[in-house]
Amino acid sequence: MIEVLIVGSMGLDDIQTPFGKLLNTLGGSAVYSSIASSFFAKTGVVSVVGTDFPKEHLDLMQRRGIDTKGIEIKEGKTFRWSGKYEFDLNTAKTLKTELNVMQDFNPIIPEEYKEAEYIFLGNIDPELQLNVLEQIKKPKLVVSDTMNYWIENKKDKVMEVIKKVDIALMNDGEARELFNTANLIKAAREILKLDSDYAIIKKGEHGAIMFTEKTNFSLPGYPLEDIKDPTGAGDSFAGGFIGYLAKTKDLSETNIRKAMVYGSIVASLEAEGLGVTNMNFINQFKIKERFTEFQELSKF
Amino acid sequence: MIEVLIVGSMGLDDIQTPFGKLLNTLGGSAVYSSIASSFFAKTGVVSVVGTDFPKEHLDLMQRRGIDTKGIEIKEGKTFRWSGKYEFDLNTAKTLKTELNVMQDFNPIIPEEYKEAEYIFLGNIDPELQLNVLEQIKKPKLVVSDTMNYWIENKKDKVMEVIKKVDIALMNDGEARELFNTANLIKAAREILKLDSDYAIIKKGEHGAIMFTEKTNFSLPGYPLEDIKDPTGAGDSFAGGFIGYLAKTKDLSETNIRKAMVYGSIVASLEAEGLGVTNMNFINQFKIKERFTEFQELSKF
Repeated sequence: MIEVLIVGSMGLDDIQTPFGKLLNTLGGSAVYSSIASSFFAKTGVVSVVGTDFPKEHLDLMQRRGIDTKGIEIKEGKTFRWSGKYEFDLNTAKTLKTELNVMQDFNPIIPEEYKEAEYIFLGNIDPELQLNVLEQIKKPKLVVSDTMNYWIENKKDKVMEVIKKVDIALMNDGEARELFNTANLIKAAREILKLDSDYAIIKKGEHGAIMFTEKTNFSLPGYPLEDIKDPTGAGDSFAGGFIGYLAKTKDLSETNIRKAMVYGSIVASLEAEGLGVTNMNFINQFKIKERFTEFQELSKF
Repeated sequence: MIEVLIVGSMGLDDIQTPFGKLLNTLGGSAVYSSIASSFFAKTGVVSVVGTDFPKEHLDLMQRRGIDTKGIEIKEGKTFRWSGKYEFDLNTAKTLKTELNVMQDFNPIIPEEYKEAEYIFLGNIDPELQLNVLEQIKKPKLVVSDTMNYWIENKKDKVMEVIKKVDIALMNDGEARELFNTANLIKAAREILKLDSDYAIIKKGEHGAIMFTEKTNFSLPGYPLEDIKDPTGAGDSFAGGFIGYLAKTKDLSETNIRKAMVYGSIVASLEAEGLGVTNMNFINQFKIKERFTEFQELSKF
C-alpha cells in the first residue's frame, strides 16, 4: 500500500540552461515530487500522459519504487513544456506550453490509493485539487501547491483549497500576489488565518520560512555552488517534505521543521543536475551528509 | 580609549517611506554603524560635517557613549541625501545627493584613535579607505564596506582595499557585480582568494552568508513584520558586528558567526523605526531577547 499519494502533472520538457540542454525529458510536478518523496516513503502517482509517452520514463519511476498504476495513458499527446534559463538561473522563461491530454485531466483516485494518509496536491487546476479532496478517505496530512496562473485566474478556488488542506505551500511571489502584500510575514499571517496550523513559504535560493501562531522557523537555502537547473525544485521540496513526514508519522512542529530540511536537501541535490537526471545519484548517504551540512551551516 | 574606530560619512537625510517621512534627519554610514557598535563597545568616529550640522545630533551620539572628537566641523554645508522607498521597501530610490563638505573629506585619525584595534571603514571613496589604513597602528581586525558606485568607478582601488582588510563586507548585488557572477557562492570564493579568511555577503531581508575555505554559515533574515525603514541596515549590521567582536575580543569562527547574529539584531531593531529614531528604544534586554528569537527560528 502506498504511504504518499501525489496528484499532479506529468509531461515532456525541453529545458535550456547556460549549462546545457535537455530535450523531451521527463518532467511535471507529479514527477519531481514523487521522485523526491520516494527517497522516504512508498509513493503513488495520479496523473495522465498521452500514448506518445515513452515507456522508459515509467520504468525509471518504477525503478525508484514509485507506484505508477494511477497514471492514466490516454489517446493523444503528452503535456509539453519548454523553458529557458538565463545566466542567473532565477526564473525560467516559458517558451511553450502545450496542455494536450492534461487539458481534460480529471483525476480519478484508484480504490487502493484512497486509503493513503499523506497527500500532495501538486500544481494543477484548483478545481481538480478540490475534486481529489472529495475522493480521499482518511487523510492525516494534505499538502497543496499552486502557481501564479491559478491565483490570477481562479483565486476563489485557490483560496478554497488553502482553507481545506492542512499545509498550503506557495512561493514568495505567489504569497505576495495572493495576499496583496510585499511583506512575507504578513502573508504568512494571512495563511494562518485561513485555518492553517503552519504557513510555509518557499523562497527559492533563499530557503523557506515557516510560521505558526506563536513561533517561526527560517531555513536558509543550501549554498549551491554548482547549480545546473532549478526546474522542479519547488516540487522536489514538497515531495521530500511530505515523504519525510509520511516516513516518520510525526506532525509535531519539530518534525515539520526537519521535513523542510529534507525537502530542501532533495531539491538541492536534484538542482545539481539537469532535469531529473540527478535522481540516480541521490542516495541515503548523500541525504544524510547534506543534513549534517545544513546543521553546520546554521549553527551559531 | 576607544575600542572601535569607525570612518565613514555623516549627513542629513530626507527619507520617505510608505510609513512616513523624516526630513533633515541624522544619517550616513558612520552614524548608523557607530550607533550599532556603541551597544557593545566604546566607539569613536572620524567624519566631517558642515557648520550647519545641528549640535543636537552630536549630543545624541554622545549620549549613546560615542566619542565624537574625530568629527571635523568644516566651513560649508553638511552632506545631504534624499531617498524614497516604495511599497516593497526593497531599495531606496535616491532623489538627491549633495556631497558638500564630504567632497573633500580627508580623514585624519586623531592620535588617540590610532591605537584602536577594531576598525570599520564605512562606505567612502576606496582611496580614503586606503589612506586610513596607513594611519592606524595596531589593528586586530579591519572590516570594510563599499557600494556599487565605487565598484563601477574605482574597481582597482576597491580590490586593493579588499586585499588589505581582514573582512570586506558587501551586499549580494555588489558581490555579483564585483566578481561578474550571478552565483553568490562563487563570488564568496573569489573574496577568499583575495587573502581573506572570511567572506561575508549581506543579503538584506534574506540575511547574510559567510564562507571560509572549508565551512560556511547562512544566517536567515530576522522576520520583520513591522519594518519601517531599511536605511542604514547594512551599516547597522557592520557596526553591531565589529562592536560585538571588539567587546568579546575573540576572532574564532564561532564568534564571527555570533557577531553576524548581533549585527543582524541591531539592524533589525533599527529598521523597525524611521531613520535612527529607534536607537533610543534599543537596549541590552531587547538585544538578548532577539538573540533568543534568532536561536529559536533557526533550530531544527
